[in-house]
Amino acid sequence: MPESKFDFQLQHTDGSARAGELVTPHGKALTPFFMPVATQATVKALTPEEVWGVGAQVVLSNAYHLYLRPGVETVSKLGGLHKFMGWDGPILTDSGGFQAFSMGPLRKVSDDGIKFRSHIDGSEHNFTPKLATANQEGLAPDIAMCFDQCIAYGATEAEVRQAMDRTYRWAQDCFDVHQASLTGAASGQALFGIVQGGTFEELRDESARAISAIPFHGYAVGGLAVGENKEDLYRFTGQVTELLPQDKPRYLMGVGSPEDLVEGVARGIDMFDCALPTRVARNGSMFTPEGRVDISKARYAEQQGPLDETCDCYTCQNYSAAYLRHLFRAKELLGLRLASIHNLRFVLSLMERMRAAIFEDRFESFRREFMDAYKPANEVARQQQKEHWLRTQTD
Amino acid sequence: MPESKFDFQLQHTDGSARAGELVTPHGKALTPFFMPVATQATVKALTPEEVWGVGAQVVLSNAYHLYLRPGVETVSKLGGLHKFMGWDGPILTDSGGFQAFSMGPLRKVSDDGIKFRSHIDGSEHNFTPKLATANQEGLAPDIAMCFDQCIAYGATEAEVRQAMDRTYRWAQDCFDVHQASLTGAASGQALFGIVQGGTFEELRDESARAISAIPFHGYAVGGLAVGENKEDLYRFTGQVTELLPQDKPRYLMGVGSPEDLVEGVARGIDMFDCALPTRVARNGSMFTPEGRVDISKARYAEQQGPLDETCDCYTCQNYSAAYLRHLFRAKELLGLRLASIHNLRFVLSLMERMRAAIFEDRFESFRREFMDAYKPANEVARQQQKEHWLRTQTD
Repeated sequence: MPESKFDFQLQHTDGSARAGELVTPHGKALTPFFMPVATQATVKALTPEEVWGVGAQVVLSNAYHLYLRPGVETVSKLGGLHKFMGWDGPILTDSGGFQAFSMGPLRKVSDDGIKFRSHIDGSEHNFTPKLATANQEGLAPDIAMCFDQCIAYGATEAEVRQAMDRTYRWAQDCFDVHQASLTGAASGQALFGIVQGGTFEELRDESARAISAIPFHGYAVGGLAVGENKEDLYRFTGQVTELLPQDKPRYLMGVGSPEDLVEGVARGIDMFDCALPTRVARNGSMFTPEGRVDISKARYAEQQGPLDETCDCYTCQNYSAAYLRHLFRAKELLGLRLASIHNLRFVLSLMERMRAAIFEDRFESFRREFMDAYKPANEVARQQQKEHWLRTQTD
Repeated sequence: MPESKFDFQLQHTDGSARAGELVTPHGKALTPFFMPVATQATVKALTPEEVWGVGAQVVLSNAYHLYLRPGVETVSKLGGLHKFMGWDGPILTDSGGFQAFSMGPLRKVSDDGIKFRSHIDGSEHNFTPKLATANQEGLAPDIAMCFDQCIAYGATEAEVRQAMDRTYRWAQDCFDVHQASLTGAASGQALFGIVQGGTFEELRDESARAISAIPFHGYAVGGLAVGENKEDLYRFTGQVTELLPQDKPRYLMGVGSPEDLVEGVARGIDMFDCALPTRVARNGSMFTPEGRVDISKARYAEQQGPLDETCDCYTCQNYSAAYLRHLFRAKELLGLRLASIHNLRFVLSLMERMRAAIFEDRFESFRREFMDAYKPANEVARQQQKEHWLRTQTD
């Protein structure tokens, strides 16, 4: 890994919205940005070239999944995560805290860490702040995340407080391990802290102040987008970002629907990740400026033009909506690819347009215009899909 | 469709092996060549650019599948098969005879045609020589195939004779319909006849003479690679090509394992198609100069280099065998793509090398060298896989 240091420069603000530049050992990234999700060291169905091609600057992978398979040591022996997956740009890895959270009955949380059984072979594992940090040193992403305890929406205040306190203690442990390591901080790898506190204003306040007192390279808003309604998602995001230092990047974890990206940027978020754009793409659900549509519907059967006339992606530039519909109805793998490319390009183009609007001090009018046209997916259906996914899927 | 005519020039021979050039309304193709299979108007998992990239010149699609979904009229309205699937090079479509054959109990054959139930929705259809030819006029490939009656390996001589006689009468019908059509022959579309006759020398002889008496643009050897052993496959291929006109292209249908391609070229075949390279790729079975290997085996767990050091494909140039293994074990879609690219490149590179060897009058030594190194997949396992596929799969 090159020895350049991690850095962040805030370039411009427009209200609470921010435009900046992140410097990492694997190059720069312009904020605000969205990270496509490469849980198992691959953005599902796509090559690294295609991920670059849609405008991605940073991808997110998952230390928990790679720890279980193929193993941190294997990735390390093969030259680290960048070389393993053929992605030369910046990589952020999640620590595994969220995965441990989403395992439900397979996990057991204590002050020391999270014991769980592998979803692959049932083997027992014990994640601690130390192990989670060491895993991310072995994988060698540009940005590592603290090991945190995420907690389910609907938990009591006492439960949320306990998880928040643990998250704080673990954050200190992660920071210390990372600082002491020759392959961690010293190699230029950044470590981000994570704010928890559920949907309790006082706890969010307390967590934001405590976590931001530790000199991490950046700060994440965790424990949102786990079942709360949109109003709460936006409210707590805004509450936390107001308490975070201006000169460090802020990352809203697990958020990636177009409307949430816009509302997140409006509240001062710089970084996002979410499996949603690629996950729904594989079900034939594709983004358009008016909202998500189901490409397998009969109305596309003879549409000669692209699904989205305004889109500059490979899919819309080369294939008719009718052909996309055919691929989905015929269950052809190419359909999964073409829809994934389109949905990623849709959100990444949205990020680019937000950045431009911020520089031109017209973010609010951009936001209004986008939100007027874009109809979010039905909220109840969305929550059901997400809960189903939390129970069953890896990405 | 451009108004250029179909043509074939034999450029060089070396023993029975032939090198030539096919001219079609969508460009030239150098023989001998292998056609990747795009049954449902897509080479499974790959874009047209990737199919070009592995060196494909012509792709094969299937009029039966496209007739059922999305429908010939739909493809025709959308500008024909080339535009629909985004492939600008030559396309050959199979008529549906083989699919009707492989449907088993769902079909009923008479002198008029084949009645069958759709594998998609159970609806009833009646394929006749006229309909099969009209379908291919509507889809507008560069090369259409006659509607034939393929017959199972193990059928009696009387059954095979009946199918062969029908195939001949149907070939005459197809020829007449195609000649009379303004969108068929007149537009530059070629029509190929198909020789049947099972594994009976006398019937193969009779069929080859009868079919080649009709002035088709090319001739196919059909009804092989359906369960007979390799010796019979090679023997009947050689018997038929000796009886076919020298100045027309010869096409061995459904053959595409590396060893069969070499043995087919040795017997004067110019064109091949087979789903095998991409089908086995999706199961993690990849070609190497020594034979097929299972990429998910533990021996690849830490192999930093590519699977095949000698291969110039995108996969071998960019990814370690260890990463490929990881993708297959993690059931990641990218694995299906990367293995498909490699296997196609393997067979297409083999075709290129055979063509070069023919021009340099060293085909026999090339063949010996290749066959000495390459260990064919276990024959029993191969037959079982093929029979399973014939019963269950579309491609």
